[in-house]
Amino acid sequence: MTPKNRPVIIGVAGGSGSGKTTVCNKIYEYFVGKSVKMIEHDSYYRDQKDLTFEERLDTNYDHPFAFDTDLLVEHLTQLLKNESIDVPVYDYANHTRSDKTIRIEPQDVIIVEGILILEDKRLRDLMDIKLYVDTDADLRIIRRIQRDMNERGRSLDSVINQYMDVVRKMHEQFVEPSKKFADIIIPEGGHNVVAIDLVITKIRMILQERNKA
Amino acid sequence: MTPKNRPVIIGVAGGSGSGKTTVCNKIYEYFVGKSVKMIEHDSYYRDQKDLTFEERLDTNYDHPFAFDTDLLVEHLTQLLKNESIDVPVYDYANHTRSDKTIRIEPQDVIIVEGILILEDKRLRDLMDIKLYVDTDADLRIIRRIQRDMNERGRSLDSVINQYMDVVRKMHEQFVEPSKKFADIIIPEGGHNVVAIDLVITKIRMILQERNKA
Repeated sequence: MTPKNRPVIIGVAGGSGSGKTTVCNKIYEYFVGKSVKMIEHDSYYRDQKDLTFEERLDTNYDHPFAFDTDLLVEHLTQLLKNESIDVPVYDYANHTRSDKTIRIEPQDVIIVEGILILEDKRLRDLMDIKLYVDTDADLRIIRRIQRDMNERGRSLDSVINQYMDVVRKMHEQFVEPSKKFADIIIPEGGHNVVAIDLVITKIRMILQERNKA
Repeated sequence: MTPKNRPVIIGVAGGSGSGKTTVCNKIYEYFVGKSVKMIEHDSYYRDQKDLTFEERLDTNYDHPFAFDTDLLVEHLTQLLKNESIDVPVYDYANHTRSDKTIRIEPQDVIIVEGILILEDKRLRDLMDIKLYVDTDADLRIIRRIQRDMNERGRSLDSVINQYMDVVRKMHEQFVEPSKKFADIIIPEGGHNVVAIDLVITKIRMILQERNKA
């Protein structure tokens, strides 16, 4: 069902706090040392060197415009031609692209992760398998509150305000509607061992059929 | 991830007209001649010999009470012990169980199909993989109208009346809520080649790991 002479591209989308990163990490960790690599859409946040620091703070990082998706499309197209790419490294402290890059060689399987990766038709058309991690909105905001307060030292008010002003609106406008493009919907994210096993099994079979298991 | 000394049970649920039967048939046809068998919940409609023919017409066949799920649970439990079972054959003309049965020997993989198979906790607890085929309600009623008019010679009014009086209510009350128990949600049913391929790949790996591929 999948081609043998180019990478198989698996997209993993889902809202903030859905557990999609956990799903991706569990899949990725299973294949350490194998020909499987992960690319995050967040690495392709736009270069904002032409903006002042204050202007950069106003960017809506949950909107499709925040991403240099042209470059991601170009990179995936290169990987499909078995060419190497240099993935940008984002500088979160300065809210712009850094000068560093990470080289990714052609792989058998590429996992592309991000809240908006199913929103862009060009990305969808490059994917062989499109997954959407679907978690109820109350669980997603609880996870976001816990993560942002515990790991990033933010106040409850600040997390809730950002959620109400930006995250929730962008989710409703762009993320949730992109669910209809998914081939498979994974409920409850990272705890869903059966769904994760199905994806791992598919990747195992791809590697096996290329004699790389 | 799956046991090797007993059948793996895969449940496939979804509303009437969702395309779940097409999904099951595409999976099943792939494994003709292999140790994979399908069991339909509909085969376990209750024996109604104690009712008159007219009384049988009043049965709500979309309600959990219409099914002899006790017997299906018993049968799946027997298969898990690698014992054979005799699946009842339903007599749709007389609206009751016939005297015929079909013997099913222990298998490596059993697919259990039906609108309500995720509604019963005992069934869920016996399943290794729980799938829900999720199709929009408008597409489901269109398919049902086309199927019942073309294949069963029914009038449009009769199909719509049955849908409004029974099918829709039972779907809302029992089928749709059971979606939350699924490990994987398959949008758009029988046309979803990527999702069907993932399930087929899992079964291929199960058979392969039992040296039966």
